[in-house]
Amino acid sequence: MSDDRRDPEAQLIQKAFAPLTLGAEGSFGLADDVAFITAGSSGLIVTQDQVIEGTHFLATDAIAMVAKRLVRRNLSDIIAKGGLPTAAFLSLAWPKSRPRAGIIEFASGLGEDLAGLCGTCPLLGGDTSTIDGPLVASLTLLARPTAATGGPVLRGGAQEGDVIAVTGVIGDAWLGLQARLGLLDRQKLTSCVAFATAPYPPALALAPLIGQYAHACLDVSDGLLLDARRLAQASGIGIELALERVPVSHEAAAYVAEDQIARTLMLASGGDDYQPLIAFAEADFGAFASRAHALGIRVTAIGRCVAGRGLKLSFEGEPVDLPATLGWEV
Amino acid sequence: MSDDRRDPEAQLIQKAFAPLTLGAEGSFGLADDVAFITAGSSGLIVTQDQVIEGTHFLATDAIAMVAKRLVRRNLSDIIAKGGLPTAAFLSLAWPKSRPRAGIIEFASGLGEDLAGLCGTCPLLGGDTSTIDGPLVASLTLLARPTAATGGPVLRGGAQEGDVIAVTGVIGDAWLGLQARLGLLDRQKLTSCVAFATAPYPPALALAPLIGQYAHACLDVSDGLLLDARRLAQASGIGIELALERVPVSHEAAAYVAEDQIARTLMLASGGDDYQPLIAFAEADFGAFASRAHALGIRVTAIGRCVAGRGLKLSFEGEPVDLPATLGWEV
Repeated sequence: MSDDRRDPEAQLIQKAFAPLTLGAEGSFGLADDVAFITAGSSGLIVTQDQVIEGTHFLATDAIAMVAKRLVRRNLSDIIAKGGLPTAAFLSLAWPKSRPRAGIIEFASGLGEDLAGLCGTCPLLGGDTSTIDGPLVASLTLLARPTAATGGPVLRGGAQEGDVIAVTGVIGDAWLGLQARLGLLDRQKLTSCVAFATAPYPPALALAPLIGQYAHACLDVSDGLLLDARRLAQASGIGIELALERVPVSHEAAAYVAEDQIARTLMLASGGDDYQPLIAFAEADFGAFASRAHALGIRVTAIGRCVAGRGLKLSFEGEPVDLPATLGWEV
Repeated sequence: MSDDRRDPEAQLIQKAFAPLTLGAEGSFGLADDVAFITAGSSGLIVTQDQVIEGTHFLATDAIAMVAKRLVRRNLSDIIAKGGLPTAAFLSLAWPKSRPRAGIIEFASGLGEDLAGLCGTCPLLGGDTSTIDGPLVASLTLLARPTAATGGPVLRGGAQEGDVIAVTGVIGDAWLGLQARLGLLDRQKLTSCVAFATAPYPPALALAPLIGQYAHACLDVSDGLLLDARRLAQASGIGIELALERVPVSHEAAAYVAEDQIARTLMLASGGDDYQPLIAFAEADFGAFASRAHALGIRVTAIGRCVAGRGLKLSFEGEPVDLPATLGWEV
C-alpha cells in the first residue's frame, strides 16, 4: 500500500486501512512494499477466499456487510481447521463507479470482524486498485494451528467408527435466500433472512476444541450432503447420515414439517451454513460436545463413518436415495 | 480449491493448477480447504499485488503473459526486499465471457514464472471464481528473507552519505507504452515495446546481494523520482540524484539525445521499471556492484543521501527543478 502523503487517494487508503493493522510491527504501518510475518517454530494455516459483486453479493448490499462476509467466509474455513487467525491481507478492486468514500465503510466492516470475530487479527498488507467493473475483494487469512499434529485438521482423517457431527443448524442460509428471492414467505422466515444477509461462523473458541478432538473437519459451504461426501472421499471411508437428526432452527422446522424427507434434503444441499462438519472418535465426542455446549455452541451427532465408500442416507432407519444434486457445485 | 471429481469446472481448475504445486506437501494437492506453510525460526516476507483487466492490462493481451505480469509485479517487490520466494497463493476472478479453457493458458504462464523466475516456488492454494466483468487476479507471494536482520530490506534504512544506485535501465517501459499507444515511433523502439509488453525483474540471484549489502531498497514501480522521494521520506534524509547518470538503453539514449534534461525527467517519472533502487554504505557499493556484474546485472550509482529532507536533482553539476509530476500516483 502506498504511503505518498501528497496523494489524496493514498491518504484515503491509509486512513481506511492503517487502523486495521492494530499497530502490528510486521505491517510497517502499511507504508512499505511488503509485510513480515513470524510463524514461530510451527507453521501457519492459510486460506484465501474472494467475494465478487454479482457472484457472491448484490450491488445493493451494504458495503460494510460485504466486507464482513469476506472475513467470515475465510474465518469459517480457519475455525474448521482448528486455526486461530494471526494475520490478514486484503486485495481490493474498487469500482470506478462507486464513491471512493465507500472504502472507509468497507474497511470499518472488515476491521470490526478482524478485531472481533477473528480475535484481534491485524491486517498486515495488501493491494488496493480500481476496476472498471464489479467490486472484487480477496482476503488471505493466516492462522496458528491448535491441533497436536501442528497442522490443519484435514478432510482426510476420518476413520471407520467415527461419529459425524455438525455445529449450529443447517439450512437457514438457503431458506433465507429463497425468501429474499421472493420464492418463500418472508414473514415466516425472518431469522433465516437475517442469517442469509449477515451469516456468521461459530465462536472462535470452537477452533481449539476442533484442534484437540477432531479426526477430520470441513466447513459446510456447498451443502451438507456434498461436503459430507467430500469428507468421506478424502478419508477413503463411507459416511451414513440420519436425516431426522439434521439440526434445524424453529423456522426451518416449520418449513420441513410439511414433507420431512424431501425438505430436509433441500436444506442439506443448500450450502453457506458456516458450520464445521466434524468426524470424532466415538470416545471423544461426548467431551467435545459438552465443552462446546459450555461455550453456547450446539453440537449434533448426525451420522457415522463406516466401511466402504461414498455417502448413504436414512430417515428413521429407512434408507433414502441420494438426491440428484448434493449441493452447490462451482 | 475444490476437489469434487464429478464437477467439470472443479476438474478444469485441478488440471490447470494442481501441477503448479510442484508436489509441495503444504498444498495438500489443492484438495483441502486450506494450505500449510512453515517459516522456520525466522519469518516470511509477504507481498500481494493484483492485475486487473482495463487497469493493468488490455483485454486483448495474451493471457499467459497477463499471468506472468502478475508474478513479476510481486517478484520485483520481493527481490527489492532481499527475499527468496517460497510459496504463492492465487485469487482468480475469471470472466464469464472468456472461454474457460483460457484458465489453462493463464495457469501455464503462472507456472512457468513461479517455477522459473521465482526459483521453484510452489502454488499452495487460493480461490477461483467467476465474474460478470473484467478479469481480476491477485497473487500473494511469501519469501524467505536473506538480510542479516532476518526481515525485509525496508525503505527506511538509508543513511546520510549512502550511495543511491539502480540496476538495469530506466525508462524503457514508459517509452514502450508510448509507442504502443501510437505516441512515439514504434520502429525506433522495438526493444522498449518488447519490455513494455513483457516486463521482467532482474535475476533472483540479486536478492541475496540486496539482503547482504543494502541499507534500504524499493522497487521502481511508480517512477524513479517518486520512488526516490519515498525512500528519502521513509529514511528521514535527503537524496540528490544526478540526471546524467540515470542508466538508459540504446533506444532510450537516442530519444533522450534531443533534449537531455527534459527527456531524462520524462523517463525518470514513467514507472514500471521493475528495477530495485538501492541505498548502500559507500564502502559496500563496490563489492555489491562487482558481484552483481558477475551475475550479468548492470548497477549504476546515480546519487547520494544527504542531510536534510526530500529530493534534489542536478544535471552535470547544475541544479534542476523538480518536475510537477514525479511519477504515477494512484
